[in-house]
Amino acid sequence: MTKKKFITPEPQFDNPVVKVIPLGGLEQIGMNITAFEYGESIIVVDCGLAFPEDEMLGIDLVIPDVSYLKDNIEKVKGYIITHGHEDHIGALPYILNEVPANVYGTRLTIALIENKIKEKPVPKKAKLKEISYGQTVNLGDFRVEFIRTNHSIADSAALAITSPAGSIIHTGDFKVDYTPVFGDVIDLIRFAEYGKKGVLALMCDSTNVMRPGFTMSERTVGKTFDTVFADNPHSRIIVATFSSNVDRIQQIINSAERHDRKVVIEGRSMVNVISTARELGYITAKDTTLIAIEDMRMYPEEQLVLITTGSQGEAMAALSRMAASIHKKVTISPGDVVIFSSSPIPGNEKNISRVINELTMKGARVIYQDAHVSGHACQEEIKLIYALTKPKYAIPVHGEYRHLSAHRELAMTMGVPKENAFILSAGDVLSLSKDKAMITDKVTTGGILVDGLGVGDVGNVVLHDRQLLSESGLIIVALAFEVESGMIVSGPDIISRGFVYVKESEELIAELTDVVNDTIDDCFYRNITDWMKLKNRIRDALSDYLWKKMKRNPVILPIIMEV
Amino acid sequence: MTKKKFITPEPQFDNPVVKVIPLGGLEQIGMNITAFEYGESIIVVDCGLAFPEDEMLGIDLVIPDVSYLKDNIEKVKGYIITHGHEDHIGALPYILNEVPANVYGTRLTIALIENKIKEKPVPKKAKLKEISYGQTVNLGDFRVEFIRTNHSIADSAALAITSPAGSIIHTGDFKVDYTPVFGDVIDLIRFAEYGKKGVLALMCDSTNVMRPGFTMSERTVGKTFDTVFADNPHSRIIVATFSSNVDRIQQIINSAERHDRKVVIEGRSMVNVISTARELGYITAKDTTLIAIEDMRMYPEEQLVLITTGSQGEAMAALSRMAASIHKKVTISPGDVVIFSSSPIPGNEKNISRVINELTMKGARVIYQDAHVSGHACQEEIKLIYALTKPKYAIPVHGEYRHLSAHRELAMTMGVPKENAFILSAGDVLSLSKDKAMITDKVTTGGILVDGLGVGDVGNVVLHDRQLLSESGLIIVALAFEVESGMIVSGPDIISRGFVYVKESEELIAELTDVVNDTIDDCFYRNITDWMKLKNRIRDALSDYLWKKMKRNPVILPIIMEV
Repeated sequence: MTKKKFITPEPQFDNPVVKVIPLGGLEQIGMNITAFEYGESIIVVDCGLAFPEDEMLGIDLVIPDVSYLKDNIEKVKGYIITHGHEDHIGALPYILNEVPANVYGTRLTIALIENKIKEKPVPKKAKLKEISYGQTVNLGDFRVEFIRTNHSIADSAALAITSPAGSIIHTGDFKVDYTPVFGDVIDLIRFAEYGKKGVLALMCDSTNVMRPGFTMSERTVGKTFDTVFADNPHSRIIVATFSSNVDRIQQIINSAERHDRKVVIEGRSMVNVISTARELGYITAKDTTLIAIEDMRMYPEEQLVLITTGSQGEAMAALSRMAASIHKKVTISPGDVVIFSSSPIPGNEKNISRVINELTMKGARVIYQDAHVSGHACQEEIKLIYALTKPKYAIPVHGEYRHLSAHRELAMTMGVPKENAFILSAGDVLSLSKDKAMITDKVTTGGILVDGLGVGDVGNVVLHDRQLLSESGLIIVALAFEVESGMIVSGPDIISRGFVYVKESEELIAELTDVVNDTIDDCFYRNITDWMKLKNRIRDALSDYLWKKMKRNPVILPIIMEV
Repeated sequence: MTKKKFITPEPQFDNPVVKVIPLGGLEQIGMNITAFEYGESIIVVDCGLAFPEDEMLGIDLVIPDVSYLKDNIEKVKGYIITHGHEDHIGALPYILNEVPANVYGTRLTIALIENKIKEKPVPKKAKLKEISYGQTVNLGDFRVEFIRTNHSIADSAALAITSPAGSIIHTGDFKVDYTPVFGDVIDLIRFAEYGKKGVLALMCDSTNVMRPGFTMSERTVGKTFDTVFADNPHSRIIVATFSSNVDRIQQIINSAERHDRKVVIEGRSMVNVISTARELGYITAKDTTLIAIEDMRMYPEEQLVLITTGSQGEAMAALSRMAASIHKKVTISPGDVVIFSSSPIPGNEKNISRVINELTMKGARVIYQDAHVSGHACQEEIKLIYALTKPKYAIPVHGEYRHLSAHRELAMTMGVPKENAFILSAGDVLSLSKDKAMITDKVTTGGILVDGLGVGDVGNVVLHDRQLLSESGLIIVALAFEVESGMIVSGPDIISRGFVYVKESEELIAELTDVVNDTIDDCFYRNITDWMKLKNRIRDALSDYLWKKMKRNPVILPIIMEV
C-alpha cells in the first residue's frame, strides 16, 4: 500500500474530493462495478459480468474493461463486494488476474466467490477476506462499513464508504423485509446514524423504482408454497427458482418437511449453491429430508419435491430438459405440479412460455401466481432510505436509463435538488465534495467479450461477420491459377454453407459458375490480373446476381491459389 | 365448382361428417389457417403467416405448407377471411399462387388484402369478394355467414360455417365491446340464434383465456388520450401504435381535433393503412387536421401530434429511428411526450425497453399506463359466447398450448364434457358429426421458410449451418495438389471469417498452418491420398486443436484443388 499523504483539493474544488467512477452499469446492465478514488487510494465496489445481448453471436459472457484500474494499479486497495449474485461477482476471476487485490465480503458472498475461483484460479496476492456486518475495513484513505440489508440472497450488505470527503452510502441490491426468512431485518438504525452524521451521497438500487408501494416479504412466498402443498397431496411437486435464492429454497424445504415430503435437488448450480449454503448453515434441513436423485424411485410421487434450476426457461437447465423429455432422470407425467418461483427477466419471456407449453402438453399443472416476490425495493422503501440518510447528492444505480431517470425524480420528491442528482454513464468521473459536485473527466470503459477461453479477441468486425454469415450463409469460389501459363488450371469450384439446400442448389451452382467464368474472361480480356481486383470483380458479380435473383446477400469469399 | 352429390357417412360414423383440419396454429403461432372439409368441398378459413423464431437465422417469414390443399385442389371452393391482420391474411399472396380460389371477406379486410396483392400478384382466377355482415356465401356443401364482432381492427367477423353435418361457429379474433369506436356492438343476437338452432362446434379465440373478467372497451383508451393531451398543453405528443388499429388511430385524431392539434402520420405501414382506411371511410378527420410530415415545421410543437409505427421496438420502425437519432425528419427533444399505445408482444420486451431508454435519455416523457386495451376476449366474454351458442364440441383456437389447455378447462365449466373439447395440432383431421367426434387422420403440415425471394429453399441443414457459422465463425484451409508430382504446389492457405480479430490471428494462423502441414505429412506417410479422408483429417486436427486451445468450434472447410 502506498503511504498516505496530504491531498490538495483539485483546482476547481475548495474541499476534499472523492471520485465515483462507474466502470459498467448503465451501458452494460449487469456489469456492476464502481471505482471510488480519493487521492492515492482506489477501492472497487462489486465486479459483475453481463450476459451477451442477442446480437453478440457466439459470445458467452461480457466482462468490464478495467483499463482505468490497470493504469492506476498501484492505487487499487481492494474489492468490496455487496452480495454474491453473478452481476456483482461474476467478473472477479477475470479481473483479479489483471488487477489483483484483496476481496472483502460477508460470509456467504466470500464462499460463493471461493467456488468461482476454484474453477478459474487467481493470483495468490488476491486474498478473500470475510467481513461481518458492522465491521469496518480500512483501505488507504477509505473506511468501509458493511451494513446489513435484505435481498434475494443471504448476507447482502450496503456499504458506508467514508473518506475525508465524507460518507457515501451504497445500498447494493436491497429490499426492506421486516420478516426475513433468514437473519435479521435490514439495519435501518445504522442508516439513520449515518444520516444523523451527514451523508455526502446515496447510491441506491433503482430496479423497482417504477413500482409504487412496498415489496412483499419473502415469507409471503412460503405461505403460497404451503397452500400449493396442501392443495396437491397426491402430486409430485417441482419448484423452479434461482439457485442463489437460498431463503426461497429454505422455504421450499420447510414446506416439504411440514408435508412429509423428501426433497431432491437438481441442476448443477442448484446443487453447488445449496451444498455451500448448507455447509455454512444458511440452509437447515433434517438429515432425512434431502435425498439423492437416484433414490427418487424409492418414494411415491406424492412424497417428493424437486427443487430445480430453469425458472428462466434456459435451454440447458434441468427444468427445460424435463419439459423437453431429454432429462435423464426425471420424466414429467400428468398430475405433476410445477411451480415457477421467479418472475421473467426481460428477454426470457418466450423461452419461459415454451417450457410452460411443453409442461402443459405433458399434463403438468403449472403455477406461477404468488410464487415469487422481488428482492428489490419499491418506491416506499427507497424513500425510506432517503428519509433516513438525507443525502446531499443522489446517484441512482442498478437500472436502465428509464429507471435511473425515474429514480432521479423520486430523489427530487425527497428533497434532493435536481442539480444534485446524477445519472452516470460508464466512465464518467463524478467528483464530489461537500460544497460541489461535477463530472470532471471520462475514463475508458466498455464490455470485453468472452468466447470460450478467448477474452477480448472477438470484436465488432468479427461479430459483424458472424451476423452476415448467420443471415444468408456463405459462398466460396476457389480456383487455381498457373502463373507460367496464365491459365486457370483448376476450378472455379463453388462451395456453399448455410445458403440453400444442397438438393436445390445444383442448378444454381452451375449458374453461379457461369457468372464467375464470364467475370474471369472479362477480366482477362481487360488485362486485369491483379488478384485483389479479380477477387473483387468475382465477389461483386456474384453478389449482384444473387441479389437480383433471390434478394439474398451471402458472404462471398473468392480464393485464388497460385501454382 | 363440383356438382353436389350425396355423401355416405364415413365407416365409423352414422351421421354426416365435417372435417376440421388446422394447417397451422398451435405449432406455428400466427399461421392461422384451417381447412373445413365436407364430401367434395373444402373451404379455408384465414391464411396467416408467422414471424420467424429466434433460431431461424436470416428468415423473413414463415408460411404454411398447404400440401393438403394442393393434393385436393379440385375440392377447394374458397378462402374465408375473418379480419385483416397479418396473422390471418399474410400468407395469401403466396398460397393463392399455389392453390388459387376466390377470397371472401368484409370491406376493410378485402381492401387490405388488395394492398398486399398489389405488391405480389396472384392468379386472375383468385378473385376478392366483399361480403357484408349477415350475408351468406355458398361454397360447395358449405354455407358461411359473416357475423359482426369487435376486435382491434374494424370489420372483424365471426363465421357460422354450416354443412349437412351441422353448424360450426368460428369467432375469429374477437372481444365484446359495448361501446365500440367504429361500427356496432358484436352481433350477440345472431350467436344466440345459432345457439337456439343448435351449434355443432365452437372454435373460439383463446388469446386472453387466462385473464379473468372482461376486456375494457376501446373507448377507455380515448379517455387516456384526452387526459394526456390536457395535461401536456406545451409538449409535442407522439403516439406509437399498431398501424392496423384503425379505431385507435381514430381516437388519437379525435383527441387531436379536440385540442386543436395537427396530426402527422409517420411510418410506411401506418401511412398505407390510414390512407386505405380513410378512402373507405373507416377513419374520419377534418381536411385541415392531417398534415404532411414536411409541413411540421410550420407549426409550433404544442400544436402537433405524430402517429407512428414502432410500438414494439422494431429496429427499423419510425419511432425506433427517432429514438436512435437516425430519423431524417423527426428529432426527439426534451419535453416531447411519447405514448406507447400497445402492450408488448412476447419476445419484444427488450427492444421496447431499449427504445424507452433512448427516448428518456433525450428528455422525452414516456407514457404507457392505460394507453392500450386488448382486442381479445377475456374469460367472461368467452363464457358469454359459450352461453349463447351452447356448442356440442369445443375446439379452442388462437393460442399457445397453455392457452388452449386453459380454454378447455373453461369450456368444461360451461358444460362441454371433457371428451368433447379438442386441442388440435396442425394436421390433425377432426371428424365431427352430431353424435360422434374423433381425430381420424393426420395430414402433412409445417412452416415453409421464406428468405428473400426464396420460398422453401432454406431448411434445417441450412439453418443449422447458419447457427454454427454465427457461433464461432469459419476457417477455410485451401491448398493445391499437383497430381503428376504428388506434391502440394500451393498453400495450405488459412482464411477465417467471424473467428478472431485479424490482428490477433497472425500467430494463431501460423500455428494452425503447422497443424495442417503436420496432418498432411502424416497422411502422406500413411499413404492416405483419398481427398475426402485427407479433408476429414485436416478438419478433425484443427477442430481438436482449437477446442483444446480456445474452447471454440468454428466451421472448418478444407478445400483441395487438383492441378
